[in-house]
Amino acid sequence: MTYSNRKIIFAQRPEGEVTRSAFSFVEETLPLPQDGEVLVKNHYISIDPYQRGRMKTGKSYAKPMDIGDVIVAATVGEVLESRSDALPVGSMVTGYLGWQEKAVARARHLQKIPPGSVSPSAYLGAAGLPGVTAWMGLRLIGEPKAGETVVVSAGAGAVGSVALQLAKNAGARTVGIAGGAAKCAYLVDTLGADAAVDYRAGDFADRLATVTGDGVDVYFDNVGGPVSDAVFTRLNNFARVPLCGAISEYQSRPSPIYNLTQAIITRARLQGFICTDRMDLWNTAVEELVELIAQGKIIFNESIAEGLDAAPDAFISMLGGGNLGKQLVRLA
Amino acid sequence: MTYSNRKIIFAQRPEGEVTRSAFSFVEETLPLPQDGEVLVKNHYISIDPYQRGRMKTGKSYAKPMDIGDVIVAATVGEVLESRSDALPVGSMVTGYLGWQEKAVARARHLQKIPPGSVSPSAYLGAAGLPGVTAWMGLRLIGEPKAGETVVVSAGAGAVGSVALQLAKNAGARTVGIAGGAAKCAYLVDTLGADAAVDYRAGDFADRLATVTGDGVDVYFDNVGGPVSDAVFTRLNNFARVPLCGAISEYQSRPSPIYNLTQAIITRARLQGFICTDRMDLWNTAVEELVELIAQGKIIFNESIAEGLDAAPDAFISMLGGGNLGKQLVRLA
Repeated sequence: MTYSNRKIIFAQRPEGEVTRSAFSFVEETLPLPQDGEVLVKNHYISIDPYQRGRMKTGKSYAKPMDIGDVIVAATVGEVLESRSDALPVGSMVTGYLGWQEKAVARARHLQKIPPGSVSPSAYLGAAGLPGVTAWMGLRLIGEPKAGETVVVSAGAGAVGSVALQLAKNAGARTVGIAGGAAKCAYLVDTLGADAAVDYRAGDFADRLATVTGDGVDVYFDNVGGPVSDAVFTRLNNFARVPLCGAISEYQSRPSPIYNLTQAIITRARLQGFICTDRMDLWNTAVEELVELIAQGKIIFNESIAEGLDAAPDAFISMLGGGNLGKQLVRLA
Repeated sequence: MTYSNRKIIFAQRPEGEVTRSAFSFVEETLPLPQDGEVLVKNHYISIDPYQRGRMKTGKSYAKPMDIGDVIVAATVGEVLESRSDALPVGSMVTGYLGWQEKAVARARHLQKIPPGSVSPSAYLGAAGLPGVTAWMGLRLIGEPKAGETVVVSAGAGAVGSVALQLAKNAGARTVGIAGGAAKCAYLVDTLGADAAVDYRAGDFADRLATVTGDGVDVYFDNVGGPVSDAVFTRLNNFARVPLCGAISEYQSRPSPIYNLTQAIITRARLQGFICTDRMDLWNTAVEELVELIAQGKIIFNESIAEGLDAAPDAFISMLGGGNLGKQLVRLA
């Protein structure tokens, strides 16, 4: 018995906006697993903003991808062949197997997904890296209190939508920022945000000011750039700003920020974070998120593209805000 | 017995750079102190960057000055008349009596300066608001550790020079940023900084990079603007950035910051603060600073202008970086 595999490798480092030429498809035959290894068939591969960061050289918190590497990604799949007692054939597992149909991996690099009320794909979204990121940003930095106003940029994204609901569950008044009327309607009507502001419509700063009349106590920032600059003018005293990402700048030169001095006036705290710095909290976060999802206190949407061939376009679309909630590619 | 007084009041709200027209001089006869009050003759009045902030309307951490108000300032003086047992005639006191020769004030709004090894004027500088500001920024946010690199902007100023020496006393490697060769020489030769960088000379960012080869762990920021933007590119992982002031922007439109995203990559913490938020720590800070000054572990320079008439020009000069260390006006 042999297994064939198709995978997407990093073919060319993009300058500015990513195009399909950054990727190429490779077919191969996989070796069979050795002792302690399993062969996994991926059901879902994850599409995330951080993958754009890995395409850059230069200082960052993770090693850049080399040309020829499989595109780094979290995955959910099923064990087809096993040489590990911990993961028998048929186990559902999550790990970082990348943009490919199958892979051989060491069992200890994978996590078994418990059977339960949460769909396996949630382990790539609300109960995976994006959800844990939202959880850590709020737990370690944002610390929203009942009655405070929490603003979340990219509020309809995989991280933002969880951050917004965690803040709401904490009793905060929530304001989501997103691009376009449909996402803004989703924030209010489906996720239960108290208000939403479309950053693509005119007079963004004025409309933001209107819906944050009592100021902003926590700003969970996924985008950077002019959106953040406008929010900075709304900060209340002792505001907390978890700096999670800057998707507005991943493909372009940075935009200027003019209102950082507001942090002095308000004694705000702005703090970058990545959840791999606190792996000690990972399991706690996942358990809490799974429980909240099971209780219906966190709901999530998935934007699903079909088949490995769709991954590059799904990634490019996500960077432009084409997703609602978690962007995935379904392989099986 | 009556006492005449001359004072400087806020005459006109400046647009852009402050000129003498912001100020006018008023003569008056003071009432005699009532029960619980004293009449104080000021020996020194303080010139500080925050006074520029009080001239602006709009959101800030303190109420703006109204037209007609005495210019707000810390002062050191001597009690001439007393109706308070706590402050007998001849007591040296510090308080916020403003830019004027004399004032009647409630004794409980003043602090008695203990006789000792520290000159009374130090209570306006290294053992006063600027020194306590440096102490709190490092104690509460910066937390420099032995071997770390600490960069201080406006390093030759009243706050910066104390911050730099506190960091040095903590065992950190210190780099001061200042304008001009004379201040840079002072930072290294007199204050004992490991390096100094002149932000007014060319290639500032390159020279900063050269003297921060191991990156920056703490950036004590007094200036904002392009100086800060350059330092942000040098931050190490988990850097701390006490945001103390933005003197570069007090008189002009804010400069753009392009490198705030470095805070995400490095998981840096940027935090504004003002020491009046932690008055519970004030006495501890002053006691420590007085002790360090007495031991010669904090030294300070004073730029002293003579006579009340010199105050407006001394203020305007200080905003342009004309001072070395604490800017004072001596009245007696």
